[in-house]
Amino acid sequence: MSELVTFGETMLRLSPPDHERLEAADEFEVRAAGAESNVAIAAERLGTPSTWLSKVPETPLGRRVVSELRGYGIETDVVWSHRGRQGTYYLEHAGKPRGTNVVYDRENAAVTTAEAREFDIDVVQDAKVFFTSGITPALSSTLRETTANMLKAARQGGTTTAFDFNYRRKLWTPDEARETLTRLFPGIDVLVIAARDARTVLGFEGDPRQLAHKLGSQYDFTTVVVTRGSEGAVGWHDSVVHDQPAYETDTVDAIGTGDAFTGAFIARRLDGDDVPTALEYAAAAAALKRTIPGDVALVTEEEVEAVVEENGTDISR
Amino acid sequence: MSELVTFGETMLRLSPPDHERLEAADEFEVRAAGAESNVAIAAERLGTPSTWLSKVPETPLGRRVVSELRGYGIETDVVWSHRGRQGTYYLEHAGKPRGTNVVYDRENAAVTTAEAREFDIDVVQDAKVFFTSGITPALSSTLRETTANMLKAARQGGTTTAFDFNYRRKLWTPDEARETLTRLFPGIDVLVIAARDARTVLGFEGDPRQLAHKLGSQYDFTTVVVTRGSEGAVGWHDSVVHDQPAYETDTVDAIGTGDAFTGAFIARRLDGDDVPTALEYAAAAAALKRTIPGDVALVTEEEVEAVVEENGTDISR
Amino acid sequence: MSELVTFGETMLRLSPPDHERLEAADEFEVRAAGAESNVAIAAERLGTPSTWLSKVPETPLGRRVVSELRGYGIETDVVWSHRGRQGTYYLEHAGKPRGTNVVYDRENAAVTTAEAREFDIDVVQDAKVFFTSGITPALSSTLRETTANMLKAARQGGTTTAFDFNYRRKLWTPDEARETLTRLFPGIDVLVIAARDARTVLGFEGDPRQLAHKLGSQYDFTTVVVTRGSEGAVGWHDSVVHDQPAYETDTVDAIGTGDAFTGAFIARRLDGDDVPTALEYAAAAAALKRTIPGDVALVTEEEVEAVVEENGTDISR
Amino acid sequence: MSELVTFGETMLRLSPPDHERLEAADEFEVRAAGAESNVAIAAERLGTPSTWLSKVPETPLGRRVVSELRGYGIETDVVWSHRGRQGTYYLEHAGKPRGTNVVYDRENAAVTTAEAREFDIDVVQDAKVFFTSGITPALSSTLRETTANMLKAARQGGTTTAFDFNYRRKLWTPDEARETLTRLFPGIDVLVIAARDARTVLGFEGDPRQLAHKLGSQYDFTTVVVTRGSEGAVGWHDSVVHDQPAYETDTVDAIGTGDAFTGAFIARRLDGDDVPTALEYAAAAAALKRTIPGDVALVTEEEVEAVVEENGTDISR
Amino acid sequence: MSELVTFGETMLRLSPPDHERLEAADEFEVRAAGAESNVAIAAERLGTPSTWLSKVPETPLGRRVVSELRGYGIETDVVWSHRGRQGTYYLEHAGKPRGTNVVYDRENAAVTTAEAREFDIDVVQDAKVFFTSGITPALSSTLRETTANMLKAARQGGTTTAFDFNYRRKLWTPDEARETLTRLFPGIDVLVIAARDARTVLGFEGDPRQLAHKLGSQYDFTTVVVTRGSEGAVGWHDSVVHDQPAYETDTVDAIGTGDAFTGAFIARRLDGDDVPTALEYAAAAAALKRTIPGDVALVTEEEVEAVVEENGTDISR
Amino acid sequence: MSELVTFGETMLRLSPPDHERLEAADEFEVRAAGAESNVAIAAERLGTPSTWLSKVPETPLGRRVVSELRGYGIETDVVWSHRGRQGTYYLEHAGKPRGTNVVYDRENAAVTTAEAREFDIDVVQDAKVFFTSGITPALSSTLRETTANMLKAARQGGTTTAFDFNYRRKLWTPDEARETLTRLFPGIDVLVIAARDARTVLGFEGDPRQLAHKLGSQYDFTTVVVTRGSEGAVGWHDSVVHDQPAYETDTVDAIGTGDAFTGAFIARRLDGDDVPTALEYAAAAAALKRTIPGDVALVTEEEVEAVVEENGTDISR
Repeated sequence: MSELVTFGETMLRLSPPDHERLEAADEFEVRAAGAESNVAIAAERLGTPSTWLSKVPETPLGRRVVSELRGYGIETDVVWSHRGRQGTYYLEHAGKPRGTNVVYDRENAAVTTAEAREFDIDVVQDAKVFFTSGITPALSSTLRETTANMLKAARQGGTTTAFDFNYRRKLWTPDEARETLTRLFPGIDVLVIAARDARTVLGFEGDPRQLAHKLGSQYDFTTVVVTRGSEGAVGWHDSVVHDQPAYETDTVDAIGTGDAFTGAFIARRLDGDDVPTALEYAAAAAALKRTIPGDVALVTEEEVEAVVEENGTDISR
Repeated sequence: MSELVTFGETMLRLSPPDHERLEAADEFEVRAAGAESNVAIAAERLGTPSTWLSKVPETPLGRRVVSELRGYGIETDVVWSHRGRQGTYYLEHAGKPRGTNVVYDRENAAVTTAEAREFDIDVVQDAKVFFTSGITPALSSTLRETTANMLKAARQGGTTTAFDFNYRRKLWTPDEARETLTRLFPGIDVLVIAARDARTVLGFEGDPRQLAHKLGSQYDFTTVVVTRGSEGAVGWHDSVVHDQPAYETDTVDAIGTGDAFTGAFIARRLDGDDVPTALEYAAAAAALKRTIPGDVALVTEEEVEAVVEENGTDISR
Repeated sequence: MSELVTFGETMLRLSPPDHERLEAADEFEVRAAGAESNVAIAAERLGTPSTWLSKVPETPLGRRVVSELRGYGIETDVVWSHRGRQGTYYLEHAGKPRGTNVVYDRENAAVTTAEAREFDIDVVQDAKVFFTSGITPALSSTLRETTANMLKAARQGGTTTAFDFNYRRKLWTPDEARETLTRLFPGIDVLVIAARDARTVLGFEGDPRQLAHKLGSQYDFTTVVVTRGSEGAVGWHDSVVHDQPAYETDTVDAIGTGDAFTGAFIARRLDGDDVPTALEYAAAAAALKRTIPGDVALVTEEEVEAVVEENGTDISR
Repeated sequence: MSELVTFGETMLRLSPPDHERLEAADEFEVRAAGAESNVAIAAERLGTPSTWLSKVPETPLGRRVVSELRGYGIETDVVWSHRGRQGTYYLEHAGKPRGTNVVYDRENAAVTTAEAREFDIDVVQDAKVFFTSGITPALSSTLRETTANMLKAARQGGTTTAFDFNYRRKLWTPDEARETLTRLFPGIDVLVIAARDARTVLGFEGDPRQLAHKLGSQYDFTTVVVTRGSEGAVGWHDSVVHDQPAYETDTVDAIGTGDAFTGAFIARRLDGDDVPTALEYAAAAAALKRTIPGDVALVTEEEVEAVVEENGTDISR
Repeated sequence: MSELVTFGETMLRLSPPDHERLEAADEFEVRAAGAESNVAIAAERLGTPSTWLSKVPETPLGRRVVSELRGYGIETDVVWSHRGRQGTYYLEHAGKPRGTNVVYDRENAAVTTAEAREFDIDVVQDAKVFFTSGITPALSSTLRETTANMLKAARQGGTTTAFDFNYRRKLWTPDEARETLTRLFPGIDVLVIAARDARTVLGFEGDPRQLAHKLGSQYDFTTVVVTRGSEGAVGWHDSVVHDQPAYETDTVDAIGTGDAFTGAFIARRLDGDDVPTALEYAAAAAALKRTIPGDVALVTEEEVEAVVEENGTDISR
Repeated sequence: MSELVTFGETMLRLSPPDHERLEAADEFEVRAAGAESNVAIAAERLGTPSTWLSKVPETPLGRRVVSELRGYGIETDVVWSHRGRQGTYYLEHAGKPRGTNVVYDRENAAVTTAEAREFDIDVVQDAKVFFTSGITPALSSTLRETTANMLKAARQGGTTTAFDFNYRRKLWTPDEARETLTRLFPGIDVLVIAARDARTVLGFEGDPRQLAHKLGSQYDFTTVVVTRGSEGAVGWHDSVVHDQPAYETDTVDAIGTGDAFTGAFIARRLDGDDVPTALEYAAAAAALKRTIPGDVALVTEEEVEAVVEENGTDISR
């Protein structure tokens, strides 16, 4: 029985190697990539049995995605569909000033037609935590409803609900996002949100500590985590705010850092850690993720612990 | 001024290397691939200045396609679009009994919204030959109309019209194809069609010579070429049927063979060759194409001539 | 609940790309490879829920193997070990006259210490078929005993036992193999054996039909399948011998062909097919396997059926 | 009609991947690389229609170069030659203290025999700017004359002449360079020169501002740009000196940075920008170039503008 | 002390992977390739200590060549030169009808200035066999003289001289070759020549047996081997002609087949085999070479023997 | 005659490209890697003729290792063995906080059975320096004895003995290492040791200068070099301590840095440099090594000198 169940879209991520431009690429690296499966995998790697729910086209591409995710150790409980595409995105890695660029090609993906009644809702209600992110309801009006229904079902089953705000400006406007997502807030126990999104989408002001406090107070969240990129995160719980700096890291691939953070945070909370400790492990998992190519935090518990305990060495032999 | 103008969709073709399955691919080779651009390039390589018309998304992927085609020497006269996707297809190469498999992901491509009025119709009317294929009207109702309008405009400008029947069962049913394409036949001077399509889509019977004769007689074509894969082709012109066997070839990539054939045939006809001679060059270009990875017949005139003259050697040094 | 449970070693297979020699390789392709996991995967691909049992080192290499196998859809129920290596083998592909060459480096693998009591024997006894091969007892004296114990436990649980003779001359002598394996025969219901092994190891004589008959008569097997490489196989069941020719195939990687055959045969028998029909599917799966790089028969039921029904086309688009 | 016409050699650039040494390389990446085509492409990418003139061997290698350049969107107007090689250079990338190393193999290239009368001089005289660099006259005595003749023809046609000093110590001595290049100065309107070259080849002294001023005063240039690597550039125009710092950049490939700078500068000047604004865009294009593998500044106008406006984000999705 | 000493040019061979065209290549595989070093290596692999003499530029490219050759086990005794290029050639592999194509870029290589007095002639005179080929004197007038001098010195030292005619039409005309090479014939003991060259360059007529006989009679050779590609070879010795058919082989790379043949023939003769036996081993080495990518026959004595004894199996494990 | 002779194990090093995790690797880069061969190569590159002694399995893998080493220019004088494996190790490169990780798979390597009497001891006694490291005696009890015997033989022959302490915690405990290695100290002239090992294995205290002094005083070494990673090294000789800072370097591959240091130090000492000068060259070679992928310091004397003289430029063309 999985303790964590996540729901969302996982795409094929296509990226040219070695900083090449998409425009000049003769080759793409292929990987499965999606916020909610990333979170499930990060949690599984830290010892939490996890399941990812989704709707996937019954094509070699859909099977490609599920196969890779299954290889990472999580359970995949998917509705196989004969309609709808496998969503993809094209990713171009670069440093300053070019920056990493994403071209989405995910419209009309099979998952956009997923309805709550297509899934075995017991899986959600038997879990300890249900997780999805703000990307899911941004993908279609059907998914907007499905997200609400899944959160409601989880709540009814006594399952804790966790949610990453994950605003994506290439999917919808701040106004659309705010209106849709704040409507979901009452059904959410644990909110993870980037400080930037709290400001530009939700309109809050202040430093991350203040943002966490305001969010926690205004809505009825149990826990709020405000992330601030390379500067770490802030956790609000029981009206107390905890600061967690980021660990130093040599970034190879920044995509999925937030998901590693969230998955590790959930895993450690499920394991009984208090919020400050869980934040430490989350930050360590996030730092390790940045050294690994791909979306996925392919880490071990020992590695995460070593970072927390600062036992890192340059070469281990 | 281009002598040949072609119109149609060019996709990004994504294929795993070394016979790997799509389902297990960690890498895709990326190439531009489309019947009409293939034909333009094959003709250009044999000395006919050629232009490809299309509608392409203003994204790195759209630019990727146009850039590759331009590198092959043709002119690209495209409408850049801010709506619609870059069509893609996934290709898995294999021998018997697995066979080569194609997964289309080309719905809602930018080109599906292309209307005749978006193009500079002078380019078509100033050319000697206008070419498109049965794939184009299969892509959208808009393109069905656009194809008809382009053929009409060409005819009005005194431009010869050439058309490859190119039935694709993953795009539409035989009934849909027959109804749509036979309606275009009155506007077509030169028809290229696979014997298989003549039988299963158009319902003709007989051997390729008979098919060519029946097609040429029933509709008002100037020239009909019936292709029959590895067994060569048959050309019908002025009520005479010409047999053209295929040249022996060590196939590396069979995709685009027919387009190489058609492009070379058009180029040689424009250059003044009679139909039997043009068929010889067409078959030679097709045989060479099969030795080259990708959709495109990256051949030289000298090579095609050497095949016709059977001057091939094993190693030239 | 898995219907098929297999037990054996899965190695890391390291092979230079593009027919390069091991001696000159600068790069190895890495894949999981083992007869018993191959059989489980082939059966799973044809619809039989399957589990692979083994003992694997708790290292990145051990996890690498399990992760790949899990990605193919089977369950992996492994004992993680802190002692013993991950077995590897080096593979060099070539045609005639060089031939494909294998360099084993599998001594002292973790699996060589696996004892029956380390596994949840219910998994075996609740399955419909238990499978292992003659490679397993060749690996260590412990495994010799474990194989016998697993077969015995299966029999006790009412689970059908299937066994591939799989003689490997780089592991032991014909005498050693004969002595060990014939001792296991009484516990085996379904035997798969290469005609060559029946002759050179067991000392039988005659054509494959005769070999199958003699084996079936002399020992108390329910079913005997004698394979004869590119010439197909012969099945003996209820005293009747069935001939199954091989399907034509363009071989890319011959390793794992027999395992694909056996896995498909088991899957179809479990699905209710009679022996001649199961042999047909087995031969089709084997033919498809040869077009796929790696040890694993990454096929679909539809593809296997299409081969049986000879619906193959050159290009499907 | 192209607004910018450039003339010079473009080589095949062969470089081992991943910082490997030439001495140990088993693989070379292949790219077209030449200062004058780089400048044309950078200008084209910023909206200036550009043509590159050269003489190229009629071989697969010569066609390889022209094909790649054409793919970048510029016009290529080349004399195809049956004599002379395709020039190549071998490039080894490394950081400190090894440094990036270049092994030229460009002697007897076809271009070294190019004479002005082989080109359609109208193309030059109808352009707004003609550009070449100090590399061209360093390649042969014929090219020394041709460079002078092309500059003279441009001047006669009312075309502005732009010149990058581009001293290459592996091609000639400082004395040879100074003598040849200063003789060309009277025919040049816009000079781009590295501060280092102004000092060690031309013998000027002072900081970059002083160098720009002295060069502008002593010779009759309209505009002088003195570049100083990672510290930016200085522009002198109408007796005023403008400082342009470099933008921060994560360098992947430094080759072609100066050409990106010059091409962007020319494009923006042609577009009507004043010198300080053009320098800003030039510095932005140069910074982006350094993040892109290969010689060529495969940037978009939007990206360059975003750098100038400092709108860069880490990940755009 | 080496028993075999060879002298000649070894080039960098640059070839696009996977049948790609040179014209479209983004990547080249890099290998050392030269007839005389190939012969030395083939002989060394069959147990004959061998040395390769040449003149090589003191550059990373020159060192690249020597390093690879040394890795194959032979001694390399080279004159390091500060003048002259490292010769290269570009190779495009293809089957019928395209064929394998070679673009030489070897003019002005360092080796073209090599004089006999630059080498330690004792190395030649202490060897049992000295070998060079008709390529060497084709490269420069200096090398024409050097070849003659080296052969003369060998003869004076009592060293047997062996020579492969190796006519290359991209280097010189048949007339030039005939005139130069026949002048060397009096100094040659063992001649290897393709039947095609015997006919088109030397003007002999007849089948390979007749060619061998005529050559052996007309000139004063001890041994003549006439090769005829995939149909085997004919050896003439002591006025007796021996037929040697070719072994069946799945060709991956045909370049270097003749050199493998010659090297193995020399090695076996040095080892005491009679001509028919040496021809068998030569044909076996040649067949194995064709399964190996690159110019070099990276075989073992055991493999060659296995082919001769027809012990080949499909998979050895 | 080699001036430097080294003795030890060289493994096949298998590493996934591009920071990929071992656990997810589909490809390994293959290189020969061993402390003692690294030292021999570094010395050879700086002009000291060097030989590496070892025992290697007579398999394609053993030949793979020897072939690569020979390609680097050193002599390889190995005992070919029909028993024992080719040792391997798996290497995963990463920056902070993940760090570079090594998984050894070197047990039962052929070299672990090497006895002194298997080697031609004259090679050692005719050399000027004999080198091995603390890894060798860690591999087996046989090698413990062999190391002692080789050092003794060297000493008897008047050959200077040099030794790198090279403690590897994955091979043995500090206690085991200390006991074994200090017993060898009386036979060692030149000791190289990491400050960390001096502290945690030998139990010394103090800064590197103090460590060097204490080591030099307590045992009867002629020279002691204490390395301290990116902070340089300290040399003790004739009771004087010399500080050598590290040169700035952009690290691509840190493995082998210490071996490059030691090899260069030995080479320069043999060439007559005093200790401070040899330390400078050693630090320069080490800095260059870090820019080169693989274990081996593929540098030239000119490059090392340029670093010492700080003549580095960014791009040399």
